[in-house]
Amino acid sequence: MKKVLNFSAGPSKIPTEVLKIAQEQLLDFNDSGISIMTGSHRAKMFEDVHNETIELIKELYKVPDNYKVLFIQGGASMQFAMLPMNLKQSGMVEFVDTGVWSSKAIKEAKIQGLDVNIIASSEESGYDCIPSKMIFSEDCDYGYITSNNTIYGTQYKVYPKCKNLVVDASSDVFSYPIDWKNIGLLFAGAQKNAGLAGVTIVIIREDLLDIAGDDVPSMLKYKNYAKSNSMFNTPPVFSIYLLNLTMKWLRDQGGVEQIQVQNKQKAKILYDVIDSSEGFYVGHSQKDSRSLMNVSFTIRGGYDELQKKFLSKAEEKGMIGLKGHRLLGGIRASIYNAITIEEVQTLANFMEEFKQENFNKKTYEVLNVKCGGCANTLKKTLKEDFGEVEVDLEAMPRKITLDMTDDRMEELKEKLRSLGYPLTTDELSGFDKLSTTAKSFVSCAIGKMSDEE
Amino acid sequence: MKKVLNFSAGPSKIPTEVLKIAQEQLLDFNDSGISIMTGSHRAKMFEDVHNETIELIKELYKVPDNYKVLFIQGGASMQFAMLPMNLKQSGMVEFVDTGVWSSKAIKEAKIQGLDVNIIASSEESGYDCIPSKMIFSEDCDYGYITSNNTIYGTQYKVYPKCKNLVVDASSDVFSYPIDWKNIGLLFAGAQKNAGLAGVTIVIIREDLLDIAGDDVPSMLKYKNYAKSNSMFNTPPVFSIYLLNLTMKWLRDQGGVEQIQVQNKQKAKILYDVIDSSEGFYVGHSQKDSRSLMNVSFTIRGGYDELQKKFLSKAEEKGMIGLKGHRLLGGIRASIYNAITIEEVQTLANFMEEFKQENFNKKTYEVLNVKCGGCANTLKKTLKEDFGEVEVDLEAMPRKITLDMTDDRMEELKEKLRSLGYPLTTDELSGFDKLSTTAKSFVSCAIGKMSDEE
Repeated sequence: MKKVLNFSAGPSKIPTEVLKIAQEQLLDFNDSGISIMTGSHRAKMFEDVHNETIELIKELYKVPDNYKVLFIQGGASMQFAMLPMNLKQSGMVEFVDTGVWSSKAIKEAKIQGLDVNIIASSEESGYDCIPSKMIFSEDCDYGYITSNNTIYGTQYKVYPKCKNLVVDASSDVFSYPIDWKNIGLLFAGAQKNAGLAGVTIVIIREDLLDIAGDDVPSMLKYKNYAKSNSMFNTPPVFSIYLLNLTMKWLRDQGGVEQIQVQNKQKAKILYDVIDSSEGFYVGHSQKDSRSLMNVSFTIRGGYDELQKKFLSKAEEKGMIGLKGHRLLGGIRASIYNAITIEEVQTLANFMEEFKQENFNKKTYEVLNVKCGGCANTLKKTLKEDFGEVEVDLEAMPRKITLDMTDDRMEELKEKLRSLGYPLTTDELSGFDKLSTTAKSFVSCAIGKMSDEE
Repeated sequence: MKKVLNFSAGPSKIPTEVLKIAQEQLLDFNDSGISIMTGSHRAKMFEDVHNETIELIKELYKVPDNYKVLFIQGGASMQFAMLPMNLKQSGMVEFVDTGVWSSKAIKEAKIQGLDVNIIASSEESGYDCIPSKMIFSEDCDYGYITSNNTIYGTQYKVYPKCKNLVVDASSDVFSYPIDWKNIGLLFAGAQKNAGLAGVTIVIIREDLLDIAGDDVPSMLKYKNYAKSNSMFNTPPVFSIYLLNLTMKWLRDQGGVEQIQVQNKQKAKILYDVIDSSEGFYVGHSQKDSRSLMNVSFTIRGGYDELQKKFLSKAEEKGMIGLKGHRLLGGIRASIYNAITIEEVQTLANFMEEFKQENFNKKTYEVLNVKCGGCANTLKKTLKEDFGEVEVDLEAMPRKITLDMTDDRMEELKEKLRSLGYPLTTDELSGFDKLSTTAKSFVSCAIGKMSDEE
């Protein structure tokens, strides 16, 4: 069997110990002679697994007695729809927008005609952080956050206060202890930290069960799940069974508290590589918002070609699932609970090696870039296609530093030429389309670079 | 490993061949080095399985090109809620009520405020048949049927005509060929004939996708599943994989046409045992409505004690899942596609043996039961607790025939005594509470029985 390190964002790695038990029991669960998949969900065999799973969650996650643990199908996206149906009272709800997943939840609340206020958003900075100021109103029906943002690699360190806080913890459930005092409802699809896709864990404070009216469809009403112990109809039996095994595995790891310690160690290994890479790797999220679950980064100056090379070399070494989300591009290492420190270290070592092999940082002097504004325009012009540029504002002439492979330098020149940017002072005639400022530094910068070559 | 024959109504047997492949591939799908459960649903590995499954369904079920095959979570109960949301136009919908599952679908349409007409029902006869006359209106948004009724063991032989016929085929999907000309939407939870709980197959005619308005939540809108190829969010990957394997297994069996032949053979074996049992076994459904999937029956005169004995003896022989639904009691053998003819034959042999061992049919003469009305009152009085009684209305004195074990006869006498029914003519003094008619036949009947002992 091929050795594979699976850094997929979800569905994602399930502990090997868990899969081995599932494999062993697949045709014969506990000497019953049948598979857990094929017994009635109302028979003792499955009911025991079901109830034990709920107890394990309560125990490991320290869920207080006035909360119910429910199992629902449809993933987080179904919760986006169920929340407004079940929790609306005045109809005014508040959200923190930290990216795609909160935006989807916002959209669904609007579809149902709720009065939606976005009290904080990091959209402007490309969702690279958790907003610093988040104050929910006293009178909102609920306040909504996405505790970890898989795409951007951001994560709350502390949850904001809200009477009925709703937390989408799909990507960091069971990865740190929860302060339940502040929580109205927390939900999470299982496929990242809790096993197999197909079941969503909803942990709800009991008083919220009584809000939904008679017009809410039965299968979309939390109360019906609570009343029937999540057996309103046939539950997703195998996903619940995998959840059961995953919770036992988590217990064996020392529980949520101990897994948090490991998660911090794992994330530190990767962020240290990024931070000490002299800008070769650039993390997407701001440092104080960094996720312990998803490490999203780009390769500086490393345009798609270099990132593709990274992914392809990684795959050769058995590391898969590292491609960044299509909305953000770049690289993403998802290091959920099931990923071991050794696996993360293997990735970190590879990142170091890859940097050594592909780092090609050079410094050029740039004439005529006199003010900081000019320097910033240059940075922006180049960043769009060619990644980060450092500009030394102390030196005169300015020094720009790029990490660029040699073939990429040709591409840069080609691009500038196609845009009407001359590569030597002889080509200045094409410059009439540019502003005076742009003319001055581009001509100088590129002229100088051409000289250096 | 214990040898078990699993007659569970759902979740139910999955073909052993399917489970063996799943077991073998559990940690390493097609030499990928990872489990199918743990790869991204957007990666080629899973997408291939997903798309192949849709193609297999289209091929095996001969789904025309103007239908879409969707995979949705939440089981049939979620469809009960999605149908009104997605298909309502005028708001008038029509149902045939054949028991619990259609009743639930009706309830959900009402919750959403639709104008619900029940055009036919078999409620009055205890849902023991499919109504014979079913005419849907031209102008209903859709007409709804439950093609097979697991609890009562009834099944449609032909679907009624309707412009937009909706079929809940949860318990007989893929068990016979479908005439698609008449179908608007057909849906089925996977856990009976199609593998593992957690995915519902929805096959919808394309024109119905455009009815739903902007107020329908995204995860509850068929169109979003159609547009995203059922990948609006993470699908239930392992349930789809099991569905894939089950479809391949079905193909290997010769497809839907050949499985129908087998299903008919299987059902005939059990119904023949019932019909030739001299009334020891009594099928619940009327003969022309008999289900090929669920054979529901009671043991005549076989009160709970005898049925429990049947279930317990069956379990000793490794036959499980035979307990009837709590609403109906008795015995139910679910013989879905995956159940083999040999397994059914084993059950039939056991039923024959059990009958031989427990059949204790005796005939008593009853004095003074002159009219048919008296005989019927006696039948009803005894039936409530002691099962069926045959009364020979040709003979005089009347002859009653009961199938009753000896210890049960003591119980009968005790019961009658406690009700003030005398067991001999000496005890007639207690009779003043009874009507004259009751007095006359009970005293005589029981007097005669006592004599026979």
